[in-house]
Amino acid sequence: MKPFVFVNLAMSADGKLSTTERRQVKISGRSDFLRVDEIKAGSDAIMVGIGTVIADDPSLTVKSERLKKERTDRGCDENPVRIIIDSEGRTPENAEILHKGPGRRIIAVSEKASDKNLERLSPYADIIVAGKDKVDLGGVMEALSDIGIKKVMVEGGGTLIWSLFEENLIDEFYTCIGSIIIGGQSAPTAADGTGFIKEENFTKLELIDMEKADDGVLLRWRVK
Amino acid sequence: MKPFVFVNLAMSADGKLSTTERRQVKISGRSDFLRVDEIKAGSDAIMVGIGTVIADDPSLTVKSERLKKERTDRGCDENPVRIIIDSEGRTPENAEILHKGPGRRIIAVSEKASDKNLERLSPYADIIVAGKDKVDLGGVMEALSDIGIKKVMVEGGGTLIWSLFEENLIDEFYTCIGSIIIGGQSAPTAADGTGFIKEENFTKLELIDMEKADDGVLLRWRVK
Repeated sequence: MKPFVFVNLAMSADGKLSTTERRQVKISGRSDFLRVDEIKAGSDAIMVGIGTVIADDPSLTVKSERLKKERTDRGCDENPVRIIIDSEGRTPENAEILHKGPGRRIIAVSEKASDKNLERLSPYADIIVAGKDKVDLGGVMEALSDIGIKKVMVEGGGTLIWSLFEENLIDEFYTCIGSIIIGGQSAPTAADGTGFIKEENFTKLELIDMEKADDGVLLRWRVK
Repeated sequence: MKPFVFVNLAMSADGKLSTTERRQVKISGRSDFLRVDEIKAGSDAIMVGIGTVIADDPSLTVKSERLKKERTDRGCDENPVRIIIDSEGRTPENAEILHKGPGRRIIAVSEKASDKNLERLSPYADIIVAGKDKVDLGGVMEALSDIGIKKVMVEGGGTLIWSLFEENLIDEFYTCIGSIIIGGQSAPTAADGTGFIKEENFTKLELIDMEKADDGVLLRWRVK
């Protein structure tokens, strides 16, 4: 068993998540901010890769007071469970995600993570060990399902999303396409990593819907 | 004076033009094929970078008999003028673009292109020399305007498109987003090169329209 897993991200019209320096930039607008807060509040967990934690230091908290209250009213924490995929346990102890706002944190590591890192991080998060050299994402999803997590939102970055596509763990893929060109051969994209080489391996999608969102477009795809 | 310049390309839902191996893959469907043939036939010239010529060896001819006839009926060649941006004059003599179908060819080179290469290519194409180490794209656009070219379609690749954005030479940007994930950190995207670093330099776009196209989406943007 695995949870329902969806990706949500904002990209420029040329498919970039940020600049070549990985500096976080404003891609989507106000109405998309509210939509993202809404779907985050509606998720049991929110997942990011260690690269995103290091580059952006996000807190991944729910922002709206109304949405927080709706969560606590139904007996949940204010924030979804925050999950970091971090093969070597490199998450900085002072990362925002470990400190800001109430709620459970999980760091998924591989056997490669040192005992020192596990000790360092265990005061702040529950640790799941899955996989030898890199995190076994399928195993993590099973473990999440076992603790009652039914819906996981993936925020990025491109390396984690690629691995999830590669292992066929994604159910839906939402992209808000902003009205800018960022450019850059090495700028992060929605699916980095090694990429598919053969056409028969490409992940096939089906368009759920498209709509205008601020100055851009929101596309929602279902994995076939 | 410069011609009206628009980019048309197909990308995967994660923003890739092809695989990391630069192997050309089917991204859009039948109706998009017809749309592209239509806008190609409606252009005075079609432009590609040398990287695309080497990787894909495209002919860039108009495919539909009706559209070819419409062009010849109004006194034009069957195909728009085919232009290669090729700083060093590396276009292979047996490239499809130089041989398939009637119509004028132009190869724009920089002063870095050897005399040997210019001699080698001059039987097949008119040569424009513009720029010292790399092609001066603004200069090429002026030269094209001078010979009566009013509308240029740019087919790719990502390096040429990036340079055109960087030099603010693009008027409109059309992307057909296909229902697949290709992935790959080094896979070609719509705007490669160095990329913009500062937000104030990002190219700002305005959505002209969006529509379903086969299993994907066609977005048309205007550069602000």
